Amino acid sequence: MNDTRLCNWVEATELAVRALQRAGAPEAQARTQAEHLVEAELRGRASHGLLRLPRLVERIHRGVLDPVTRGQGRWRGASFFEMDGERGFGPVVAYAGIEAARARARETGVAVVAIHNNNHLGMLALYAERLARQGQTLIGLSTSEALVHPWGGRHAMLGTNPIAIGVPAQPEPFVLDMATSIASMGAIHDHAHRGVPIPQGWALDGRGEPTTDAAAAKQGALAPFGQAKGYALGLAFEVLVASLTASALGTDVVGTLDSDQVCNKGDVFIIIEPAAGPRLEAVSAYLQALRACAPADPARPVLVPGDRAAQQRERAMQQGFPIAAEVWARIQALAEAPHSVRITEAQP
Amino acid sequence: MNDTRLCNWVEATELAVRALQRAGAPEAQARTQAEHLVEAELRGRASHGLLRLPRLVERIHRGVLDPVTRGQGRWRGASFFEMDGERGFGPVVAYAGIEAARARARETGVAVVAIHNNNHLGMLALYAERLARQGQTLIGLSTSEALVHPWGGRHAMLGTNPIAIGVPAQPEPFVLDMATSIASMGAIHDHAHRGVPIPQGWALDGRGEPTTDAAAAKQGALAPFGQAKGYALGLAFEVLVASLTASALGTDVVGTLDSDQVCNKGDVFIIIEPAAGPRLEAVSAYLQALRACAPADPARPVLVPGDRAAQQRERAMQQGFPIAAEVWARIQALAEAPHSVRITEAQP
Repeated sequence: MNDTRLCNWVEATELAVRALQRAGAPEAQARTQAEHLVEAELRGRASHGLLRLPRLVERIHRGVLDPVTRGQGRWRGASFFEMDGERGFGPVVAYAGIEAARARARETGVAVVAIHNNNHLGMLALYAERLARQGQTLIGLSTSEALVHPWGGRHAMLGTNPIAIGVPAQPEPFVLDMATSIASMGAIHDHAHRGVPIPQGWALDGRGEPTTDAAAAKQGALAPFGQAKGYALGLAFEVLVASLTASALGTDVVGTLDSDQVCNKGDVFIIIEPAAGPRLEAVSAYLQALRACAPADPARPVLVPGDRAAQQRERAMQQGFPIAAEVWARIQALAEAPHSVRITEAQP
Repeated sequence: MNDTRLCNWVEATELAVRALQRAGAPEAQARTQAEHLVEAELRGRASHGLLRLPRLVERIHRGVLDPVTRGQGRWRGASFFEMDGERGFGPVVAYAGIEAARARARETGVAVVAIHNNNHLGMLALYAERLARQGQTLIGLSTSEALVHPWGGRHAMLGTNPIAIGVPAQPEPFVLDMATSIASMGAIHDHAHRGVPIPQGWALDGRGEPTTDAAAAKQGALAPFGQAKGYALGLAFEVLVASLTASALGTDVVGTLDSDQVCNKGDVFIIIEPAAGPRLEAVSAYLQALRACAPADPARPVLVPGDRAAQQRERAMQQGFPIAAEVWARIQALAEAPHSVRITEAQP
């Protein structure tokens, strides 16, 4: 463990805020982005955590991330908020749209936010959780670069296209957040790094043949989860998002994994006002019944999505979360860097 | 094949209309329901086809299906149409809600229909396909009786909770329609009927143990598709629908498989107006690229959801579709039955 250190969340947030401010972000924008990364760390999702900060800074320096804007939105109809993210921080733009839409949904019953030209959203669960805590149901979708092969195909043609669904419940909201790939590219890289094979069925190599060699899989394509059904679902999300936003599709999507291209994927949030009446109690009682139902393995109770992340967050708030020493050192260096001048040049 | 006959769709529709009229349905309602059943047959989905007609008639006779009503809706906010289905025919009530919502979505950008107290919707794809042909994107969800076990659980606690997604495209719309179970209970019954084992991983028996015995699986629970992810998704749909409609949850849901209980599941449609600009062309070109991409098996091109059903429909329109002779005979008998008097008694 000598390449890992335990991190306090307050300290990590402040360091990340400082690093983003040095790169040209105003304090509020830096804090929204930093908190989003740290919240992912607290939930055990390091792939969506501070690891991504140095790339954000590099994207600012290269002019493909504007650390100031909150995006430009306009109401296309009373319940549809269309946004140009103006290359902003993913969470900064998304929360600006969500705030507008959640107030509108209280009046109209539902509101959609459809965003293009925005950077990576980070962990989708966080949007769903926040809205569900505030009493609204949310469906969140975001496309990504093509990493997943169609079922029966040989090459990557679809994004990992995650979905988040948040529903108000007690004591904690229901929060689903899952990619439509069987595993993440981060997990493939992790196996390659450790020199261990990946399970059969996870990936194809660069020629489109099944492989258990993680290094070969990095050049290839991830399998969709759940075979043909998971492929169909990931594809449905890809075209649904593309029908609602001016976003690219399939292998044309760039800017979610690199440091120098304008991000052209799409993000969609559907925010719905729950029905009146005892819905909260009914949903909460049902989730409790699931947690209490007879498990196949007595040692492993049935889980409800979000439970494990909530427990992990609780623990990590108390005890800290592990971070690669190298990542921490890079963020420290960024936080101590002289204020960038290149960013201001990158602004229009 | 001596227990199967080939059916002409016009003849089948007229017979089904007559059977439903004899049970007390006005011609328009009978036709909407009959066409929905026949369209499922044309797409090769016999489990959602004419097989279900005798049960609908029985439900009318028992007063748990009102063949006249189109449901009662009210706008809860400008973009949320809340409906009491008043025990109507599933498709009759659903189309009444969808017609109201699709006009509203043209103005506001999005509209939700949330329905309780409605009968079985039939094949969800048909709603998605119709809306997508008319230029709108649709997400359709419907819950059902608990048939699916939670991942790591032993007993059925979730519905098969299908999702449909329709997106406008050329030459045909994109239409996804899938349950979140690994297989349908119809497929289990079919294996049991033929005396062949089911694949490993499809189901648990009544005690919660894995089984390949189809007869034992009928007393047990279906697996979710895609393991933990499919469970999480099916559960998300169950609680999402329940947060928006006055519907029952989990093992409290009745009336989708029996003939004598009021149906208390929920249905949700989200209808969204696509963005302006070349979205239709972009989505269509992407779907074409998928169909043309290198397949793993040269004999099996990559499919786009809905393609196979569309081809099957084309063929069945020309050549007819197979139907069990017994089912046909029962519908004929119902079509020739004297007009029911009991139905009128069942009306409030």
